[in-house]
Amino acid sequence: MWSIKDTECMSRAIKLARKGLYTTRPNPCVGCVVTRDDKIIGEGFHIKAGGPHAEVHALAMAVEHVGGTDKLSNTTAYVTLEPCSHYGRTPPCAEALIKHGITRVVVAVEDPNPQVSGRGIKMLREAGIQVDVGLLKEEASQINPGFMKRMQSSLPWVTVKMAASLDGKTALSNGVSKWITGPESRRDVQRLRARHCALVTGVETVLIDDPSLNVRHDELGYLADELGCDELHQPLRVILDSKARLTSTAKLFSIESPILLVSCLDYSLAEQDLWPEYVSHIRLDSDANGRVALAELFAYLGQSCNAVLIEAGATLAGSVITEKYADEMILYQAMKILGSAGRNLISLPDYSTMAAIPSIELIDERKLGDDTRLTLKIRS
Amino acid sequence: MWSIKDTECMSRAIKLARKGLYTTRPNPCVGCVVTRDDKIIGEGFHIKAGGPHAEVHALAMAVEHVGGTDKLSNTTAYVTLEPCSHYGRTPPCAEALIKHGITRVVVAVEDPNPQVSGRGIKMLREAGIQVDVGLLKEEASQINPGFMKRMQSSLPWVTVKMAASLDGKTALSNGVSKWITGPESRRDVQRLRARHCALVTGVETVLIDDPSLNVRHDELGYLADELGCDELHQPLRVILDSKARLTSTAKLFSIESPILLVSCLDYSLAEQDLWPEYVSHIRLDSDANGRVALAELFAYLGQSCNAVLIEAGATLAGSVITEKYADEMILYQAMKILGSAGRNLISLPDYSTMAAIPSIELIDERKLGDDTRLTLKIRS
Repeated sequence: MWSIKDTECMSRAIKLARKGLYTTRPNPCVGCVVTRDDKIIGEGFHIKAGGPHAEVHALAMAVEHVGGTDKLSNTTAYVTLEPCSHYGRTPPCAEALIKHGITRVVVAVEDPNPQVSGRGIKMLREAGIQVDVGLLKEEASQINPGFMKRMQSSLPWVTVKMAASLDGKTALSNGVSKWITGPESRRDVQRLRARHCALVTGVETVLIDDPSLNVRHDELGYLADELGCDELHQPLRVILDSKARLTSTAKLFSIESPILLVSCLDYSLAEQDLWPEYVSHIRLDSDANGRVALAELFAYLGQSCNAVLIEAGATLAGSVITEKYADEMILYQAMKILGSAGRNLISLPDYSTMAAIPSIELIDERKLGDDTRLTLKIRS
Repeated sequence: MWSIKDTECMSRAIKLARKGLYTTRPNPCVGCVVTRDDKIIGEGFHIKAGGPHAEVHALAMAVEHVGGTDKLSNTTAYVTLEPCSHYGRTPPCAEALIKHGITRVVVAVEDPNPQVSGRGIKMLREAGIQVDVGLLKEEASQINPGFMKRMQSSLPWVTVKMAASLDGKTALSNGVSKWITGPESRRDVQRLRARHCALVTGVETVLIDDPSLNVRHDELGYLADELGCDELHQPLRVILDSKARLTSTAKLFSIESPILLVSCLDYSLAEQDLWPEYVSHIRLDSDANGRVALAELFAYLGQSCNAVLIEAGATLAGSVITEKYADEMILYQAMKILGSAGRNLISLPDYSTMAAIPSIELIDERKLGDDTRLTLKIRS
């Protein structure tokens, strides 16, 4: 069904889509390639929410290529995600493809939102366009794991980020952890944060480490050359503070970028008066252990966040995994041993059989300086 | 100084030397290549102690190649280790090289034994042979880390073997550890054992796991095809049993292969009467913690063992590292997480600064099924 040329063009579209990885959210990354006689005459990708979709960029380039005429006969458009069929901040892309007289549209993956899935394809077919669906479906889905998951389940894609020694320790017994991993890993964490809608941590981490939890443009490494300082999205900094202990003296309050405090008790009005305007607060129910109920947390975040990064201690990270909200774990592993007195990576139930441990699978492994970064899929 | 041909021939000699990795001990692995007009006319390696040295094999092949004449004019011999100059179970190889009229001898590494180092080279030079020393010295030394270290320091090369999950756990809290690593890793452990002179474990491991601690020929994987069952050396099984608690009902006593019991107290005569003849026993002093003093242990093992494998729990493994007897660590890492309730990999002092932790360096990393095997050098 698919020619080599088809696969090449869709691969190119996927590569283009990835260029939006740091900027499109909450929209998905989408790439589009337009060809005539197997030659690419237009291409584009979605850059940011509110701006033109990938198809619009690619069609504009193709129109220019053929000398300004609006009609693009004998052309194929490759799109990584089903073209939209509704009027949003931009007119529907399916309409644009029809208007330009595209002959064939190849779609990698259907829109994951069950409310609209298939509508764009139907609109195209009803206009007489040949539509072929499913080319490099897996690859195209993987560009937008958060968007795909959230549209289908109303829950965000959850990544647990951790850093440890070879013997699974995150700090010495006195809490010293600077630095277990090297500068390359720490730069990678900055890029990881920059790709996420929200970053979740526990109040203990804030009280002990007093982190900024923002993305520092000058620490992005190679990405800083590609991504301007003002294009950088800061992730929403979510602090789980069940007992409302955090005060605005914490360093993260001094950095102008959204903060969401999540507690089970109310903060004093005096305290609330000290919050900068980029701080918001919600009260959620507590779980049996008196902590913020994760079911409520992720339901809430799922309303607006595609991808959530958990940067937390052993307890919160363990709960996210045990309660089956975690989709993947990214582990920065340093070639060090700290010894049994050090702090443990992750708290899980006291399992009595090997069959009971979480099921994880290595997806990707790479060297970052002296460290190794492991990407692990967590099967639920 | 070295031509490309020189390097190629020495590389070949090193490759040949490695064929003796499982059989030469306590002798080192040695390879030899003889060339004339840059063509290899003879090659060989040392197979087992008491048998001919590498040079003898290579010279015999060269003699045959040139039609049976004993004189090998215009030839170069490449040897991975300085040819011996003394009469042992075989006549000195330096003499054989001289007798055959070899023109030039290239030596990778001098004999590490300070008593004899340089004598073979001197004997060759005095006979008018051009001797060039030092080609691929590092590579050649690394074939025999144990022999090299022991000849220089009278201590064995010590490798700490461990297996753990990504969060550094060796078992669940109830001791269940079957199986953290997969069959490929367990086969690799069999091959690792087969390369070692001795295998050291603590009595606790024996009392709890009741292991055989031998090498099973049918579990050697690909090596079983290369290595006959009767060529397989069983490592000396060394059990540290400071309080003389072990009884001959342990499974390892039922496997006919050498055992060394090391204690700080005496075993009862009744118990000693039950030992099979392949069991021997020494009493060594205890350290401040009442355990077998490692200084005494390694001084004792250094009398006969080049390479010792530590297959022990967190305490013994940690002591061997902390007391600076460990040269390397081989860590089989399973892509699993067991959680903080699990058993820790390694006991080290409760360090208060990162500067105090052991200094280790990744030397090699490879996949074994779903696991990763890390080889780490421990710097003292």
